[in-house]
Amino acid sequence: MKHINIIGIGTGNPEHLTIQAINAMNAADMVFLPVKGAGKEELAEIRREICERYISQPAGRISEFAVPQRQTTDKTYAQSVDTWHGEIARIYGELISGLPDDGSGAFLVWGDPSLYDSTIRIIERVRREGRVAFDYSVIPGITSIQALAASHRIPVNLVGKPIEVTTGRRLAQDGLLADSTVVMLDGEQAFAKIDDPDAEIFWGAYLGTKDEIVRSGRLGDIATDILTLRAEARQRHGWIMDIYLLRKGRDFDE
Amino acid sequence: MKHINIIGIGTGNPEHLTIQAINAMNAADMVFLPVKGAGKEELAEIRREICERYISQPAGRISEFAVPQRQTTDKTYAQSVDTWHGEIARIYGELISGLPDDGSGAFLVWGDPSLYDSTIRIIERVRREGRVAFDYSVIPGITSIQALAASHRIPVNLVGKPIEVTTGRRLAQDGLLADSTVVMLDGEQAFAKIDDPDAEIFWGAYLGTKDEIVRSGRLGDIATDILTLRAEARQRHGWIMDIYLLRKGRDFDE
Ligand SMILES: C[S@@+](CC[C@H](N)C(=O)[O-])C[C@H]1O[C@@H](n2cnc3c(N)ncnc32)[C@H](O)[C@@H]1O
Ligand SMILES: C[S@@+](CC[C@H](N)C(=O)[O-])C[C@H]1O[C@@H](n2cnc3c(N)ncnc32)[C@H](O)[C@@H]1O
Repeated sequence: MKHINIIGIGTGNPEHLTIQAINAMNAADMVFLPVKGAGKEELAEIRREICERYISQPAGRISEFAVPQRQTTDKTYAQSVDTWHGEIARIYGELISGLPDDGSGAFLVWGDPSLYDSTIRIIERVRREGRVAFDYSVIPGITSIQALAASHRIPVNLVGKPIEVTTGRRLAQDGLLADSTVVMLDGEQAFAKIDDPDAEIFWGAYLGTKDEIVRSGRLGDIATDILTLRAEARQRHGWIMDIYLLRKGRDFDE
Repeated sequence: MKHINIIGIGTGNPEHLTIQAINAMNAADMVFLPVKGAGKEELAEIRREICERYISQPAGRISEFAVPQRQTTDKTYAQSVDTWHGEIARIYGELISGLPDDGSGAFLVWGDPSLYDSTIRIIERVRREGRVAFDYSVIPGITSIQALAASHRIPVNLVGKPIEVTTGRRLAQDGLLADSTVVMLDGEQAFAKIDDPDAEIFWGAYLGTKDEIVRSGRLGDIATDILTLRAEARQRHGWIMDIYLLRKGRDFDE
């Protein structure tokens, strides 16, 4: 049977690659590289660099494919995601069908495949649709949460306390619930609307890449600075990926 | 100035090591290996195996040290942790003092240093106490959360939804709050007391090691099986490390 590895590659630093990931890339008959639209060229470049650095015999074993854009017109969010995943599933199905019998393929996933990523769900969908038979494994990778914490040299949790991991949209809706809250996928800079000036923020963008920026401090003091810095960086690069940890402004003595 | 790297080594599979971790281990004048008391011999063995496999010139560059036990008699939890960290800080201080001037040392941390681990806090304490001057960096590692999700081939979050990461004690106190809850450090098998038989559990023990066990299913159906399996495994090994993800028994259609 054909086999697929869904491989976590870390968040921008090619040295985030694990030995397990490198071995799986080298064992693959074909490594599939998503090439995204506008602004994401840098990310595609990092994936190519990883392949060049770690695949011993790359010739003819790397296959780039275009990822369709999600269409939002006349659709609810759920519908648009479903249609989009359907299109990607069709592409994945074709790529997998093209593998030799009993051959193996690898999909490289940013960070870790288990964290706010759809690759596992889409691969499951390809299997369910049943046009090509294959099995698959998942290989863990360094997430942007670990990259953030490492750059700030901080633990994510307070001693014995819970952590919440959430999205910008949810933070804006629900406010700051846990002592330690990690916020990802924040297109609306929800931190700037949190009414807790004594909260602490640990922010990072382009973590692991040569353009990494990190800032930390009292939310009331630095929220505006981060907004400016973020807007400038986004302008300069044409895109941004950022993440932050918020610590409530009370209950700090552990 | 002396430099310390706090290096995440993943959770039992030597192939979890990242290239960054391997490079840092090789750059160190001395790699410090904790050797824990009863039952933890297997973990010390995994650390030794990692050093042997990845350090090119290990001779005279690996230093084992005994980790004191936390004393709980006549102390509150906070006091006992504080005294214990104080003792470990003293030991770390001596190890770091023993490094050559401008030399570098490495502490290997299970999983990732940012997740329910005290090494960063203790290293900060050694710096604060000021008996030896040094700087330090943190190198991320694969956490047991990623290892769990990879073995079950599941995303941790539901689409766009938050994740809670918590301890067994907190879960027992607070019940199941988030749609997706990861539970670590559970000495009391809090999952078995959750009153949500339709919840789904994804459980794993000794993840990444040759003894890895995973189980998943409806909580009401398999909680008792997991209790039995866990008790047997713990008996056989003399110790256990397990972790699980709970998904609430409603709200599954994403
Ligand atoms: C679709 S999610 C994918 C997360 C990824 N699977 C992981 O393990 O980190 C994308 C979000 O991850 C965060 N992120 C990923 N890489 C990042 C980086 N290098 N620097 C900062 N944030 C990053 C950002 O919050 C971004 O909005
Ligand atoms: C003190 S915490 C350290 C966590 C570690 N820093 C990490 O990144 O996973 C120990 C807890 O992690 C989880 N854990 C660590 N390694 C594990 C493994 N190999 N299998 C299952 N659970 C593990 C268990 O919940 C255990 O109680």
